[in-house]
This record gives sequence, structure tokens and C-alpha cells, in this order.
Amino acid sequence: MAEEKNSIHEELIDETVATETVEGEAVEASEIEGEETISLEEQLKIAEAQTKELEAKLEEAENRYYRIQADYENSRRRARLDLEASEKYRAQSLISNLLPAMDNFERALQMEVDGEQAASILQGMEMVYRGLLEALKNEGAEQIEAVGKEFDPNFHQAVMQVDVEGFDSNHVVEEFQKGYILKDRVIRPAMVKVNQ
Amino acid sequence: MAEEKNSIHEELIDETVATETVEGEAVEASEIEGEETISLEEQLKIAEAQTKELEAKLEEAENRYYRIQADYENSRRRARLDLEASEKYRAQSLISNLLPAMDNFERALQMEVDGEQAASILQGMEMVYRGLLEALKNEGAEQIEAVGKEFDPNFHQAVMQVDVEGFDSNHVVEEFQKGYILKDRVIRPAMVKVNQ
Repeated sequence: MAEEKNSIHEELIDETVATETVEGEAVEASEIEGEETISLEEQLKIAEAQTKELEAKLEEAENRYYRIQADYENSRRRARLDLEASEKYRAQSLISNLLPAMDNFERALQMEVDGEQAASILQGMEMVYRGLLEALKNEGAEQIEAVGKEFDPNFHQAVMQVDVEGFDSNHVVEEFQKGYILKDRVIRPAMVKVNQ
Repeated sequence: MAEEKNSIHEELIDETVATETVEGEAVEASEIEGEETISLEEQLKIAEAQTKELEAKLEEAENRYYRIQADYENSRRRARLDLEASEKYRAQSLISNLLPAMDNFERALQMEVDGEQAASILQGMEMVYRGLLEALKNEGAEQIEAVGKEFDPNFHQAVMQVDVEGFDSNHVVEEFQKGYILKDRVIRPAMVKVNQ
């Protein structure tokens, strides 16, 4: 890079000298001295032009540096946010996969039994179910509250509308399927019956 | 930046001129002309020194650019790998949380029952359990095979050693607790009884 510069510089000087030789053939010695002075002045002009050019290039290089530095900062910030989002909702896929089994589990627990052994088994299974819900809670996932709550389209999906006395208007009367949230994200709304 | 340069340049020229005035007080006009020529040459030298300095600065700025560019590339590569790792093992935390409930579930399924209703409930719960295992499998998590397999310290934790006929040497005879892997990572080794 630096060598390329120098060779351009010398080339420009050579051209200047060549022009002088042709024009200054018949002039006196004192005038030739004047020519030499002009030649130096021109060399100086060239050098100063080169300085200007280098200063412009330096400014451009510095601007290029500031631009990539800004890009770098943005990229790091984005990467951190991506990683945070990835961490925050990391369990979402497994939770979604677990929901059908959790629905079946809940249905199985609602079985009506008469035998003592059967009741004991259901009791044990109820504890297992609570253990699974606890594990989900530790990861930030919870069942959406529904029955008795005011209908909220952000969390509840109304699949039936009824007119029942003893329930407030626009409140959830019954729940057909549990809804789940993961932190601030609804994984699945609760399927509910709403009072008019 | 560029203005600062120019003022330094002018300062250096002023100094040169001041020195000449003191030394050249008694010289003839022709010699003064010579002095002017030297002055221009010195100006040229200064300009050339400035060019060199700028070239060095430009080279430094360019090197600085290449360094930050390399850092930027590395940072992006690392961020991608971090995100990939985060995605790959995203379910690990929830899986670890689920294991105690899964252990209880497995134990509950091994209950011995006599009533028809109790047997039917256990059958239903067995299906729920398989559903949960299926959900884990979809996320890349599986139970470690143990009974009948050759003992592998990477996947099995020997908590008892026995000498039983009918089993190969250094093979797993019995399993006390299920082990789980997530992709290529052991979440928990299987706790086993090994034949000598």
C-alpha cells in the first residue's frame, strides 16, 4: 500500500520534469533556477495533494471502522436477546408434546371407582399428576385458571355459550380442556363454556 | 483531524523560517534565493514526512479494521454455536424436573392388583405413561436400556454386584431406577445391579 503511493508520487514528479524540459529549452541559468523553484513548489503541491488524499482515505478507513464497530455491537446485542428468548421459552416444545398425555391423565383421574384398591390407585396417580404439574411449574408453565373466572379471550376459548343462573355474566361456567401458559406466552387456551 | 495536521505542518514551517532569518542576515540576494529553495525542500521533506505518518496511520487503521472484522466473525460464529447448544438441550431442565414424577409413575404402575376395575385403571395409566415417554422421545429424550445389556459406566451406575448363574459376566441383572439420555447427553444414569 505505502509503496504503491510512493510510485504514484514519483510518476507525477517525472511528468512535471518532462514538461519543464520541453518548455524551458532556451531560457537562461537564472531562469532555470526559477524553474527549479517552481518544480519544488509543484512537488510540494503534489505532496500536499497526496496528504489530502491520504487524510481522506484515513477518514474513510476510520468511518468504516466505526460502522463495523456499530454493526458488531448490534450483532452482539441481538445474539444476547436471541439466546435469552431461546432460554426463556426453551421448554415450550416439550410442554406442547406433553399436553395430550396430560389431558389423558386428567381424564383418567376423573374415572368413577367403587373398589377400595381402585380408589387407592387413583389417589397415588393423583399425586403423580401433581408431581408432573409441579415440574412444569418449576419451568414456568402453569394451567390457566378458568371456572368461575371472567371470560378472557387471551386465555379462554369459548366453545359453548349458555345462560345459567347463579353464575355471573361473561364468566366461565365449565372447562372442557385445560389451558397452559409458559411464562407470558399462552401455549394453549382453555376450552370453556361461558355464561351469557 | 485533518485540520490538526495542517496546523502542525505550518508550525514546523514557521520554525524553519525563523532559524533562517537569524543565520542568513548578512547574505546576498542570490544566496537568499538559495535559502528559499532549501526552505521549499524542507517543506517538501516535511510534507513527505507527513505523508509517511499518514500512510502509517492508514495502515494502522486498516489493521484495526481487519482485527475487529475477525472478532466480529468469531463473535457471530460463537453466538450461532451457543444458540445451537441452547436449542439442542433446551428440554434438559424440564426433563430433569419431570424425572421424580416419572419414577413415582413407574413405581405406581408396578402395584399388584386383584380387582378388575383396579386393573383397568392401571391399564389406562400405563397408556398415559407411554404417552409421556413418547413426548420425551419427540424432544430427543429416552430411557436408557439396562437389563440384559453389558454394563457400561457411561450409562449405568452399579449400586450392587451379584454372582448369578444364567446371566453373562459384567451384564446388568436388575434395574433400580431408570436412566435417561437427551440426545448425546446422559441426564441421569440407570441405577443397576451387575453380575460379576
